[in-house]
Amino acid sequence: MSATPHAEDGARPARRRLSVDRRREELIAAALELFSRHDAEDVSIDDVAAFAGASRALVYHYFGGKQELYVAALRSAAEELEARLRPQGGGGPLEELARGLTRYFDFVEEHAAGFAALLRGGPANRTGEIGEIVDGVRRRMLWLIMNEMRVTAPGPALRITLRSWVASVETAGLDWLEHRDIDRATLERLLMDQMVALLRAAAGQDGDVEGLLRTLLPEPRKERPAARRAVR
Amino acid sequence: MSATPHAEDGARPARRRLSVDRRREELIAAALELFSRHDAEDVSIDDVAAFAGASRALVYHYFGGKQELYVAALRSAAEELEARLRPQGGGGPLEELARGLTRYFDFVEEHAAGFAALLRGGPANRTGEIGEIVDGVRRRMLWLIMNEMRVTAPGPALRITLRSWVASVETAGLDWLEHRDIDRATLERLLMDQMVALLRAAAGQDGDVEGLLRTLLPEPRKERPAARRAVR
Repeated sequence: MSATPHAEDGARPARRRLSVDRRREELIAAALELFSRHDAEDVSIDDVAAFAGASRALVYHYFGGKQELYVAALRSAAEELEARLRPQGGGGPLEELARGLTRYFDFVEEHAAGFAALLRGGPANRTGEIGEIVDGVRRRMLWLIMNEMRVTAPGPALRITLRSWVASVETAGLDWLEHRDIDRATLERLLMDQMVALLRAAAGQDGDVEGLLRTLLPEPRKERPAARRAVR
Repeated sequence: MSATPHAEDGARPARRRLSVDRRREELIAAALELFSRHDAEDVSIDDVAAFAGASRALVYHYFGGKQELYVAALRSAAEELEARLRPQGGGGPLEELARGLTRYFDFVEEHAAGFAALLRGGPANRTGEIGEIVDGVRRRMLWLIMNEMRVTAPGPALRITLRSWVASVETAGLDWLEHRDIDRATLERLLMDQMVALLRAAAGQDGDVEGLLRTLLPEPRKERPAARRAVR
């Protein structure tokens, strides 16, 4: 099913004149799509080449092999996600976080394949690069949240709480891709409610977290009867 | 550094007379220890053989190769963890969960190497077996918690909440192995407080969760001034 049966090794098919970078990006996009739709074992360089309308030789030329292509695809997805999570400014930390969460789920929704590939891990990974990419995204998210909350040296309870929340968001993203039985706005609200709930739990152990909560929720918080759902 | 330089292929060294099962378990234990202390790339079959005081040929005889040995070691760790998490009976769901959490962290503490290996993922995994083992543990934990809480068909908010909590426990375990700057009892209490806090957040979206919380916390819950820490 090769689209360019007689392409020479390393040659760019003449019928498609694309810049080197653009060509590389197309190959990465094709790889990302295929690696997450199928078990990586079942995806060949030929499949990626055919999907991108390129020659097998071109894929080898740019990436050297399947593992390198896989890592490049994951790295590209991680970079895009991180770019989207950069704060836009103009709101308090929780508003900023809620907007970041929306952009996170925009990414999950638009790039479902890449997201699942990023978090499910991957094929033969002999150098730990894939784990490093995934952990890098988690660390970056943790850093962005702490930065937004003006936290520089969290105690153990706060650090674990924020890492737990990042894990919860990841888990919720994968769950949503599997089930899609909750609408995104509701899910995002649940995750924001979880953040506040988790911080309250941590405040029971660490007075600094109680102080942080006061800066995040400056209004004295009362029971909100109107927001409670009637139970039977 | 081979302990049995002239062992014949597949032969059991005469100086150590162990049953086949016991020998296999020893090899798995040695593999688990090494695979989690070092990057899997840097662990050879020779290293595992030397660590177990066995011949390289014996390791190949039992496992066929490094990937099979790695998967066997992970599977063994997962089985042990699951065995420990079985409910012991005699308490309410939250007490049972708290005791399960203690046994979980017993496992983390006693088998730090295996736990980290299980969750960090692993080396060349061409068939997705490692991901399946890790996901299997998560599913089993989710099932045990739902069973204990008498939940059979959770709505999306509850399902996501419980999956999030399982992810939080995992994350807390890895964080604790990295930092060890919080004592275990405090960390376990934090995670139990997180469970209740997360269920409260979910109750805001799903009336059934509010009903569940009433069965889990049968006493009318009030502010507990004595339990609050003074803030500065």
